[in-house]
Amino acid sequence: MNISLAWLPVEEFTRILDGIGDPHDRSQAFADASRVNALYSIMRAGSGHIGSSFSAADIVAWLLLNEMNSPFADDGDVYFSSKGHDVPGLYSSYIGLGALPEEKLHQLRRLGGLPGHPDVSIPHMHANTGSLGMGISRAKGMILGDRLTGASRRVYVLTGDGELQEGQNWEALAGAVHHGMGELTVIVDHNKIQSDTWVTDVSDLGDLEAKFRAFGWGVLRCDGNAPRELDTAFRLREKQYAGGPAVIVADTVKGAGTGVFAATSMAEGEWRYRFHSGAPAVEDYRRAHDELVASLNSLLQRHGLDPVRLVAVDVELPAKAAGPQLPQVYGRALADRAKSDERIVALDADLVLDTGLIPFAQEVPDRFFECGIAEQDMVSTAGGLAARGLLPFVHSFSCFLHSRPNEQMYTVASEHRKIVYVGSLAGLIPAAPGHSHQAVRDVSALGAIPGLVVLEPANSAAVEAALDHCVESTSSTYLRLVSTPVPAEAEELGAEPLILGRGRVVRAGGRAVAIGSGPVVLTQLIRAAGLLAAEGIELTIVDLPWLNRVDSGWLAELAGRSDVLFVVENHYTHGGQADLIARSLLELGVPDTPAFEGIGLTEVPKCGTEAEALDAHGLSARHLAERFLTRIRPAAHQ
Amino acid sequence: MNISLAWLPVEEFTRILDGIGDPHDRSQAFADASRVNALYSIMRAGSGHIGSSFSAADIVAWLLLNEMNSPFADDGDVYFSSKGHDVPGLYSSYIGLGALPEEKLHQLRRLGGLPGHPDVSIPHMHANTGSLGMGISRAKGMILGDRLTGASRRVYVLTGDGELQEGQNWEALAGAVHHGMGELTVIVDHNKIQSDTWVTDVSDLGDLEAKFRAFGWGVLRCDGNAPRELDTAFRLREKQYAGGPAVIVADTVKGAGTGVFAATSMAEGEWRYRFHSGAPAVEDYRRAHDELVASLNSLLQRHGLDPVRLVAVDVELPAKAAGPQLPQVYGRALADRAKSDERIVALDADLVLDTGLIPFAQEVPDRFFECGIAEQDMVSTAGGLAARGLLPFVHSFSCFLHSRPNEQMYTVASEHRKIVYVGSLAGLIPAAPGHSHQAVRDVSALGAIPGLVVLEPANSAAVEAALDHCVESTSSTYLRLVSTPVPAEAEELGAEPLILGRGRVVRAGGRAVAIGSGPVVLTQLIRAAGLLAAEGIELTIVDLPWLNRVDSGWLAELAGRSDVLFVVENHYTHGGQADLIARSLLELGVPDTPAFEGIGLTEVPKCGTEAEALDAHGLSARHLAERFLTRIRPAAHQ
Repeated sequence: MNISLAWLPVEEFTRILDGIGDPHDRSQAFADASRVNALYSIMRAGSGHIGSSFSAADIVAWLLLNEMNSPFADDGDVYFSSKGHDVPGLYSSYIGLGALPEEKLHQLRRLGGLPGHPDVSIPHMHANTGSLGMGISRAKGMILGDRLTGASRRVYVLTGDGELQEGQNWEALAGAVHHGMGELTVIVDHNKIQSDTWVTDVSDLGDLEAKFRAFGWGVLRCDGNAPRELDTAFRLREKQYAGGPAVIVADTVKGAGTGVFAATSMAEGEWRYRFHSGAPAVEDYRRAHDELVASLNSLLQRHGLDPVRLVAVDVELPAKAAGPQLPQVYGRALADRAKSDERIVALDADLVLDTGLIPFAQEVPDRFFECGIAEQDMVSTAGGLAARGLLPFVHSFSCFLHSRPNEQMYTVASEHRKIVYVGSLAGLIPAAPGHSHQAVRDVSALGAIPGLVVLEPANSAAVEAALDHCVESTSSTYLRLVSTPVPAEAEELGAEPLILGRGRVVRAGGRAVAIGSGPVVLTQLIRAAGLLAAEGIELTIVDLPWLNRVDSGWLAELAGRSDVLFVVENHYTHGGQADLIARSLLELGVPDTPAFEGIGLTEVPKCGTEAEALDAHGLSARHLAERFLTRIRPAAHQ
Repeated sequence: MNISLAWLPVEEFTRILDGIGDPHDRSQAFADASRVNALYSIMRAGSGHIGSSFSAADIVAWLLLNEMNSPFADDGDVYFSSKGHDVPGLYSSYIGLGALPEEKLHQLRRLGGLPGHPDVSIPHMHANTGSLGMGISRAKGMILGDRLTGASRRVYVLTGDGELQEGQNWEALAGAVHHGMGELTVIVDHNKIQSDTWVTDVSDLGDLEAKFRAFGWGVLRCDGNAPRELDTAFRLREKQYAGGPAVIVADTVKGAGTGVFAATSMAEGEWRYRFHSGAPAVEDYRRAHDELVASLNSLLQRHGLDPVRLVAVDVELPAKAAGPQLPQVYGRALADRAKSDERIVALDADLVLDTGLIPFAQEVPDRFFECGIAEQDMVSTAGGLAARGLLPFVHSFSCFLHSRPNEQMYTVASEHRKIVYVGSLAGLIPAAPGHSHQAVRDVSALGAIPGLVVLEPANSAAVEAALDHCVESTSSTYLRLVSTPVPAEAEELGAEPLILGRGRVVRAGGRAVAIGSGPVVLTQLIRAAGLLAAEGIELTIVDLPWLNRVDSGWLAELAGRSDVLFVVENHYTHGGQADLIARSLLELGVPDTPAFEGIGLTEVPKCGTEAEALDAHGLSARHLAERFLTRIRPAAHQ
């Protein structure tokens, strides 16, 4: 779809900053201008976090314009956001101040552009965040480093409120007190809504001020969308708590700045906030944009300035891919199954929508446990439920689930409890959120846990079969779910009953065989086979959904039918399916072992569109076909 | 060394319990009797945690004797210790009450006996603990499970105080409040000393009562070594906080019950508490035993009972192995190097002794950062230090370091920061602490992190070479250090300059080649080679210290000289060196690829002596030799 979007050029920011003397109005105008551009960039990217960018905008503006010393100098004060997903707002502010190139505004979440979560490769980004709860610790390290190297600067860290459910925040606090970190100020963007819904409904924070005080921190509170109150809070912070760390609990409104996105506009009974992530509908965009511009212009007018000059561009909005989303298919099936199997309980870490759990939560509420953003607690809690004979299904994004509670998963496994882990958003794509959300290390990080089978279904039908396995198997399962819509090619493959460690040929071809799992890899393989067919080479494609188990007999039989065996992974080349198959093949010692090549990621995943990311990492059909050809041709000529 | 030890048989516990009417004296006598037997079992095992077993003994006694309903019935109240290392005391109490077989007392930390940390395979053990901070979460899961299955029981969890530095404790608290868990009581064994030294010196807990209160919990405080005060606290807990979770902060003395072990006996200026883990010296054992018996007898006398009847046994104490300990060698070398390299900083998570950091902490104090038991915070803090140009060396036991901060390590890696991680206590042995402390999954869990090289030195000289690599390489390194003394066979191998991905032949033999790394595997290989030599078979042994990198050229050359290649790992068979070598071999596609077999752990590590564990997992020289033979003989006859 083609629509007209509008953005504010840097000279307009400059004009606003030059034209308004009052620091509070100036900060407010700057924040609103940043909101206009953040909204533009998110709309253009087709995804991004509006709610949080907007709730934090006034805090960011006040810090950059008034509070911080030389925020863009090498020895200047440091600001970063621990939650990270509010970065479209930060980018816009940086661009408005000339600290990032203006053209980057048009490249949010694109390859070589501005990543969906902060990355230190972008100027003035001080920490890779997006994986929650690490910011305070990072800031402490920076300060200890500054002290050792003789630098003297202050560090400001923004956290979310839902983010404070992560235990690491609380383990970080003592060290700052111990080291008397007067340099460290934490601002809680207390917008009361986390990913899914109200913080109080997910995992109530209770008395936040009392908590920080009990941990020995100085505590202040203010309206975080009111520059005048922020001003006072930062002054008091220096005055009252100069010798130690302090937190400013800044009460904000998620989506602040427009009635359209403001959480305060939510209808009575509307439980889910709709603007946490993702681009808004076109009509919402227009209304919000107009509202922002009107409020900005009225402020300018009050200061005798002309209305803002917007630049309009016609933009082709990213097309929404068609096809079923596996977490949703899974979630529906799990809810149905739970109705006839009372052992099944579901645990969630504030991703009820994205893990497909809404049906379960609504239809089986007494067996649904919302744990908040506290994956370690969730997994250990699941271990306790399993000890009582229940069958816990534990959910989060793969990126968080395989790593944050890694030791907890191992501990539960050491008790030989049966648990089903379901990691959605698995693999390289969507690549727009960036590497904090791209789970391409999960098979490696979990594959050696005794009694835990890693399984990745290829499509909707395979999800149903996989769920059967999860329930019926005596082993624990880690179900790896790609979240992007399943392309038709993969969906059409249907499913067959699962046999542990065995795959199935989904495209019969020649003696060049490619093994893969999941909709992303299988789709690219099918397309690559099409390209190879045009060269007269028939590729056999095998769907092997088991990522850390392979059946020797099946593999020997397959090897006997292969001259060359490729294993393509939506994962790093280390520690995944290719390693397993290679080792099994070698240990089998079959005569005429086929040539072998494993293909996967060899570097930190790049942010971009799906096509950009697949191409950049050599996993698109075209790249795969080319790579296959270099092996197949010599093999054919042997 | 042969010495006489003494223990109390079950009938003596029964006599005490039957003979004392006053519940407080009865509890105290029972606790002291349990201490006698805990001390006996630790002394006999040659290791175990006295300080914590003794500080908690009165709490455990009071719970089991007075507070809990039917603690050994299937539907009874539940108690478990989250810290877990106090389990020798718990075993003794259970045995005294007839809930575990008496003969198990003689089998602490032995194969098939009582594991060094709790394991649910032992009756009435409700959770595998020892990996800290998971207990409250586990208890919540049990309670949710009980509610769903219609059971009604109370759950009591003991935590350490140092343990509360782990963030998971704090993320666990909200859920208990949300669910109104009146069933849940946490008792903090507040003995003020953690693994290394005083909690206040490691990472001060501040106002513990205020913290729990701020998180919405009911809070009580008492003397945890005074039965009368415990009695009052538990009564008040029911009375004041029936509808929600509550914590009893129990002030205890580490090593309580004897002057010998009591932390209150520490000399002025003595900073390290000596009885956290490990068996005491014989003279300390005797004094403490006599003191306990005297105090018990005086209590019995007051109640008109005869003195206790002890059973004396002559016991051969486990011999202390000779040889250097790699963490100590490493720590000395790091301190020296830090003096001439100001970039080097060291971070520790309450294991300054066991990670070899005492020289560093004493000699380079301004660059030594004690983070407490907060591995996630430690790693993110290191990331901040690295961002400031410093070179952080991050330390813990391997078991915790590879898993608890797994996501934090990945996040720092995504910034391409250079960090050196040093995990001691790596591998299967010592096997006495049990699986929570046996790190046999670290290569898998970390191996795929981009830019992180996993390196395991074979002996003292190799540690020095490895440290050179850690400092000079542009990559990050995870240094995997075995902690048990290096046997002479491995120490004599010396070291050569390291070349990434390449190994060295340490025993030239025939075309049967075994690859391994680290002192444990190499020692067993050398011994296995001796056994094979007696059969006329010469084994070539290769030390390949790189666990996730291999040089293709070097490997191809080695493969050309091999008929059969074994890779032996002090690690699970999945995700380690064998997978890597197999894949590389197969991808190389060398003519006459040798036969291949990887050998490693296939199940959760067993607790026992070193010899027992190596045997049980097929990693002793004898088992290896037998396994090699089954492959080599057929190969030789081809």
